[in-house]
Amino acid sequence: MILTVTLNTALDITYRVRSLRPHSSHRVTEVIERPGGKGLNVARVLAALGHEVTVTGFTGGATGRTVQERLTAVPGLVDALVPVTGPTRRTIAVVDERSGDTTQLNELGPTVTPAEWSAFQEAYEDLVPSVSAVALCGSLPPGVPVGAYAGLIRTAKAAGVPVLLDTSGEALRRGVAARPDILKPNAAELAELTGSHEPLRATQDARRRGARSVVASLGETGLIALTPVGCWRATPSAHLHGNPTGAGDSAVAGLLSGLVENLPWPDRVARAVALSAATVLSQVAGEFDHRAYKDLLGRVVADTV
Amino acid sequence: MILTVTLNTALDITYRVRSLRPHSSHRVTEVIERPGGKGLNVARVLAALGHEVTVTGFTGGATGRTVQERLTAVPGLVDALVPVTGPTRRTIAVVDERSGDTTQLNELGPTVTPAEWSAFQEAYEDLVPSVSAVALCGSLPPGVPVGAYAGLIRTAKAAGVPVLLDTSGEALRRGVAARPDILKPNAAELAELTGSHEPLRATQDARRRGARSVVASLGETGLIALTPVGCWRATPSAHLHGNPTGAGDSAVAGLLSGLVENLPWPDRVARAVALSAATVLSQVAGEFDHRAYKDLLGRVVADTV
Repeated sequence: MILTVTLNTALDITYRVRSLRPHSSHRVTEVIERPGGKGLNVARVLAALGHEVTVTGFTGGATGRTVQERLTAVPGLVDALVPVTGPTRRTIAVVDERSGDTTQLNELGPTVTPAEWSAFQEAYEDLVPSVSAVALCGSLPPGVPVGAYAGLIRTAKAAGVPVLLDTSGEALRRGVAARPDILKPNAAELAELTGSHEPLRATQDARRRGARSVVASLGETGLIALTPVGCWRATPSAHLHGNPTGAGDSAVAGLLSGLVENLPWPDRVARAVALSAATVLSQVAGEFDHRAYKDLLGRVVADTV
Repeated sequence: MILTVTLNTALDITYRVRSLRPHSSHRVTEVIERPGGKGLNVARVLAALGHEVTVTGFTGGATGRTVQERLTAVPGLVDALVPVTGPTRRTIAVVDERSGDTTQLNELGPTVTPAEWSAFQEAYEDLVPSVSAVALCGSLPPGVPVGAYAGLIRTAKAAGVPVLLDTSGEALRRGVAARPDILKPNAAELAELTGSHEPLRATQDARRRGARSVVASLGETGLIALTPVGCWRATPSAHLHGNPTGAGDSAVAGLLSGLVENLPWPDRVARAVALSAATVLSQVAGEFDHRAYKDLLGRVVADTV
């Protein structure tokens, strides 16, 4: 069982409109809804790979109930979300059919009270000892202390459970100091954390700040992994046309599944790149194309740096 | 008991953003949600005036549940919505803080099956005999026949219950031929129905098409009412600054409440204008300002045309 934590869960809604023009009225011709927030995306990919996953984080209000109903429908996924009074946020992606561009409207999420944060920590402490790995993913909702991930990392490490961190900004800075087993920043997060825009140097710097391993996702140029047993780089075999939404979350799922299956690092990195590329190639945002994944997995090779 | 029918109920969501720019990402700084659709708005105003109201129409999915939860919280309002498989629509009004302008995103609503439409008609036939007036309000969701309102008007008339129609386009054209007791078009609906942009002439034409009385809402110039017992006009006493959302629905509530209280026509028209103006003046879109209403009621006078 793998545990993914999504403190700021969401219902991701995609609206299709003919052409978005501010200050006018639009008919929404298509509505797609799915549970969102990075940890839920990671969990869905892990479940599709055949792993059992428990999801925790917060859920509140009518939107939270909708998220939970959708999660219950995913085979292999266990819902351990903790209730809060405030409503789970919605994110709305308005896709302009004419230009193909997307306009994003993001609610902030519930304001979590100190009592609700304590209740979450207790639930987390109860869950951690029985899982094989933990992923801490995404932004913090209002009210959750900025050092939240640092505490959750320490709890996992005290229980001897490997923990991966994928977040940004101050939550990332504070989290990495608590020495997660794997840090999975993208290029922008890495640059913000280290001040360096040179990927290899920035990855080395991030590792020196406390992470045991750092796997940086660099978009089209693939992944770079700095670990105690070596440094690898893997790149998708061809230029990818598609939607990059969720590609980073698929990479996290690839790394975690490889970890709990005790794969050697080069295989974990290759799997993460193949899953990530198969997500870009999928018709549905945030899902991965299973056939493309199988095909890419045989072709992606992690090279020693 | 008054019955309002809202075949295309909605959850009206208002988002506040700093400045809406297509193809970029926005933090939503405020979220307001309320049950919507014209008949639900009319019902809320009637309930605030102290009338007992039953609401019917369709409800579906998680959004429908949210609408029903909100309606249950309104004192004096009875929920008799009929379940459908498709989800109740959301409408999203994105308010740009900088310009004050609003961009509207409207979902289409559930597609109603023939069996669901039959179930609604049966529920409506059961409700009508025990009410003192019926209001048929708003657009038709996909799947409901365009002659729907004509049938519902005939049912009410057969039961001897007065019926008001407030809709647009082909549903209005077909509905008026079934001879509703009151037709409440706005200027645009009146022009579309009759081809005339001259309000008095268009109102007379609409009445000739079958309505017993026609009350046209003409925005800042108030109401014009053509009835079997006379013709009146009333105007708000001063130029109104505010949000006209829901002003027409408040006018319908004013007319209906006056009808069931057996007020003379001039008093009904004055009440409708005062309620409508108090809705424009309210801080909250679609609500009316009670103090302004009381004040205006003493000052608005309906003049014989």
